[in-house]
Amino acid sequence: MSSDNQRSGSRQVITLLTDFSIADGFVGTMKGVILGINPDAVVVDIAHDLPSWDIKAAAFVLHAAYRYFPSGTIHTCVIDPGVGSDRAALIVTTQDHLFVAPDNGVLTLVFEHEPFVGVYRITNLERCLPVISNTFHGRDIFAPIAAHLSNGVPVSEIGIPYTKGERFSIPKPRIENGYISGEIVYQDHFGNLVSNIHQRDLNRARIGRKAKLVIKDTIISGMRTSYSGVPEGELLMLVSSAGYLEVACHRRSAAEILDAAEETPVEITTRERV
Amino acid sequence: MSSDNQRSGSRQVITLLTDFSIADGFVGTMKGVILGINPDAVVVDIAHDLPSWDIKAAAFVLHAAYRYFPSGTIHTCVIDPGVGSDRAALIVTTQDHLFVAPDNGVLTLVFEHEPFVGVYRITNLERCLPVISNTFHGRDIFAPIAAHLSNGVPVSEIGIPYTKGERFSIPKPRIENGYISGEIVYQDHFGNLVSNIHQRDLNRARIGRKAKLVIKDTIISGMRTSYSGVPEGELLMLVSSAGYLEVACHRRSAAEILDAAEETPVEITTRERV
Amino acid sequence: MSSDNQRSGSRQVITLLTDFSIADGFVGTMKGVILGINPDAVVVDIAHDLPSWDIKAAAFVLHAAYRYFPSGTIHTCVIDPGVGSDRAALIVTTQDHLFVAPDNGVLTLVFEHEPFVGVYRITNLERCLPVISNTFHGRDIFAPIAAHLSNGVPVSEIGIPYTKGERFSIPKPRIENGYISGEIVYQDHFGNLVSNIHQRDLNRARIGRKAKLVIKDTIISGMRTSYSGVPEGELLMLVSSAGYLEVACHRRSAAEILDAAEETPVEITTRERV
Repeated sequence: MSSDNQRSGSRQVITLLTDFSIADGFVGTMKGVILGINPDAVVVDIAHDLPSWDIKAAAFVLHAAYRYFPSGTIHTCVIDPGVGSDRAALIVTTQDHLFVAPDNGVLTLVFEHEPFVGVYRITNLERCLPVISNTFHGRDIFAPIAAHLSNGVPVSEIGIPYTKGERFSIPKPRIENGYISGEIVYQDHFGNLVSNIHQRDLNRARIGRKAKLVIKDTIISGMRTSYSGVPEGELLMLVSSAGYLEVACHRRSAAEILDAAEETPVEITTRERV
Repeated sequence: MSSDNQRSGSRQVITLLTDFSIADGFVGTMKGVILGINPDAVVVDIAHDLPSWDIKAAAFVLHAAYRYFPSGTIHTCVIDPGVGSDRAALIVTTQDHLFVAPDNGVLTLVFEHEPFVGVYRITNLERCLPVISNTFHGRDIFAPIAAHLSNGVPVSEIGIPYTKGERFSIPKPRIENGYISGEIVYQDHFGNLVSNIHQRDLNRARIGRKAKLVIKDTIISGMRTSYSGVPEGELLMLVSSAGYLEVACHRRSAAEILDAAEETPVEITTRERV
Repeated sequence: MSSDNQRSGSRQVITLLTDFSIADGFVGTMKGVILGINPDAVVVDIAHDLPSWDIKAAAFVLHAAYRYFPSGTIHTCVIDPGVGSDRAALIVTTQDHLFVAPDNGVLTLVFEHEPFVGVYRITNLERCLPVISNTFHGRDIFAPIAAHLSNGVPVSEIGIPYTKGERFSIPKPRIENGYISGEIVYQDHFGNLVSNIHQRDLNRARIGRKAKLVIKDTIISGMRTSYSGVPEGELLMLVSSAGYLEVACHRRSAAEILDAAEETPVEITTRERV
C-alpha cells in the first residue's frame, strides 16, 4: 500500500472495535502495544462506546463499517465477556480484510456475508505479550497479533486452521407478497431503530413507497427518503445507510418515543388492513 | 507540509466534527473512506459527543478549535439533520483552511469571522462514493470529498461557486458604558457557561476586574483569573480560553448549580446597584 | 524510531490523557497545536472520559497504560483543576518515557514506581503558544511543549530542575500472614472494582486461590482466573490486568451491585472466620 519500499507493508490500517469506552485507558494501551511492534501502523477507532458485553451490537457495527476500509485492513474486535476462559482467539481472513477477535460470535455477520473465509486459531503465544493476563487479551493477545500481521508476519506462523467459529442465530424476516415481518436488530445513539429487513427483501415482497409499517401498535405510513421529510418530532421509516429498513424520528429519538429496542417486532405491508 | 516529495500534498490534516458519538461506528467508517482515497491523510477528531442535531453547538466548537490547526487543514463538519433533503453540500475556503459541510448554518461563525471566504456547492458526484445513501452523507459525500481535496484535487473540479451559505442569527450583546447584557451561548461538559460577551466588549464598556455579574438572580462579584481562585464549589466569572466571559464553578458544574444553559441571560456591570 | 533520516526523531508518539471528554473540541484543539509544531507526530489518546478533576483516577489510568508505549513516548496529562493558579507545569523524565503535566499529583504513581526520575519546571514560555490563557494550558502550554520535545528540543532548553513534585498519599494495604486489608482505588466503566492489593501482597501474605474476600458485608469465596468462571450476574474476585486484586461481576457492574466505589474497604483472608 505504500510507495516506500524500505518499510513495505507496515503502513497498514489497523482498526479497533471494543466496548472499552475511552474512560479507562484500555484502548490507548492497545494502541501503545501496536505502535511498539509496528511504529508505522495507522490505528483507527471504529467504535468504543458499545453497550458492555453486547456481541450482537458489535457484530452489527462491524458489519456496517468494515467494507469501507482499504483492502488489507486488519480489524481488531475486542468485545470479550469470556476473556480468560477457554474460548479460542481467532484470525479470520476474507478476500479483502483480516479480522482478529475472540471466538464468541462477534464475527457472525462476516461469516454470513463473506464468500471466502479462512478461520485460524491463534496458537503462537510468542507473538503475544510476554505475560498474558486473564482479563485483558485486547492488550496481551489481540493488539500484538494485529500489529505483527500488519508487519507482514504470515497467518500460518501465528495460528492453525480451525473448523469452528461461533455464530449467533440471525433473525430472518418472514417475507410474503406485500408483507414482511421482522424485528429491530440495532438502535444507534440517535435512537434510530434498524430492522433486519433489507432493501432486497422489500423488492422481493414488492413493497414500495406507499407501505405501512407497524411497530408497538403505532402505524407509520409511506417510505421516506430523508429524516427531514416529515415535521420535527414525527416518526418515519426509510432505508438506512446500510440498506436496511429503519424506523426514525426527525430530530428526536424513535427508540424513546416508541419505547422500542432490539428484538421489538416490526411489520411492513402494502395491504389495506394492518 | 512534508519534506517527502513523492507524496507531496497528501500527508495533510483532515479533521472530523460530528454528532455521531463513538458508539455506532459512523466516525470510523468515515475514516475508512478517507484512508481508502488518501492513505497518507492525518485524520484528527475535533469532537463527536456533541448534542444530537445541535448546529449552534457545533458551530461554537468549530470556531474555538479550527484556528489552532495547521494551514491547509480540511475541516469536515457533519452535523446534518437535513441529510437527504435538498440542502446543499458545501466546500468553503478561507485564507488558511478548507471546510466541507452541509449548508445548514454550522459554518456561521466561519462566515462571521473570516475576511476572505469562498463558497462552493459540491456538484461533482464522481468524487463521492458510487452509491450515495439518503442518511449518511458523512460517509458518502463529505469524507470522500475531504479526502480528494487532501490529495490536491482542486475545488473547481468538485464544486461550483455558490452565493448562499446558511447562517443562524448570532445574538449580539448590548453594550453601554459600565454595563453589558448578553446571554449564554455554550456550555461545556464541565458545566462551564460561556457567554457571547467578548473581552473586547468588556474593554469597550470599561468593565474591569471589579465587575458584578447577574445570572438567574445570582450575583457573582469580581473577575477571576483562574477556576481555583475561589474555594471549591463556589461560583466565579473569568474570561474563557476563547476570549469570552464565562461563568464557572471551582470543581463543580455551574450549569447544574444555576440551572442555566444556552440562552440564559447574563448581565455584567460596574454600577453600584444591580 | 524511524528509518527516515531527514526527519529523524519527529515521528514520535505523543499521548494525551485528559478529563476533557470528546464533546467540546478541547482534545482536537490540542492535536491541532501539536501537528502545527510537529506534523509527523503520532498522537494517541489514552483516555478522555475520566471523571472531571479526578487526579487520582487519572494517575491510576496513566500508571496502567504508559509502560505499554514505545520507549521515548511523551505522555501529556492534563487533568488540571488548578489551571491558571501558581501551580507549576512539569516535565518529568524517566528511563524510557517523558511526561508533561501540571504539578498536582497526577504523576504520583510515576514518582512512586520509576527508579530514575528527573523533574523540571517549564519556564521557557517561548516554546508555548504566544498567548497563554488562564483556563486552557492543555492548548497553550502542554501541547506545544510536548510537540517541541517530540521534535528533539532538549528538556534543558524548556525547563529548569525542580525539587518538588506533588504526590497524593497512596493508601497502603495492611498485610499479615493470611490476611490483608486494603481499599478500592479505581472503578472502571464496566463497574469492576480495582483494589490497592497487589499480587505481590497476596504472595507475601500466602493468600492463594481458596481465599475469602469481604466487601460491604458481602463475602466472595475463591480466587477466579476469568470473569466468566462464575454464572452471569455473580460476584467474583480475580487479579486484574494491572496485577491488583479486583472485585467484579460476570456481565454486570460490581460497583452497582455492591454500591461500592473508590475508598470502599476490602479484606481478604484465608482464615476460617471472616
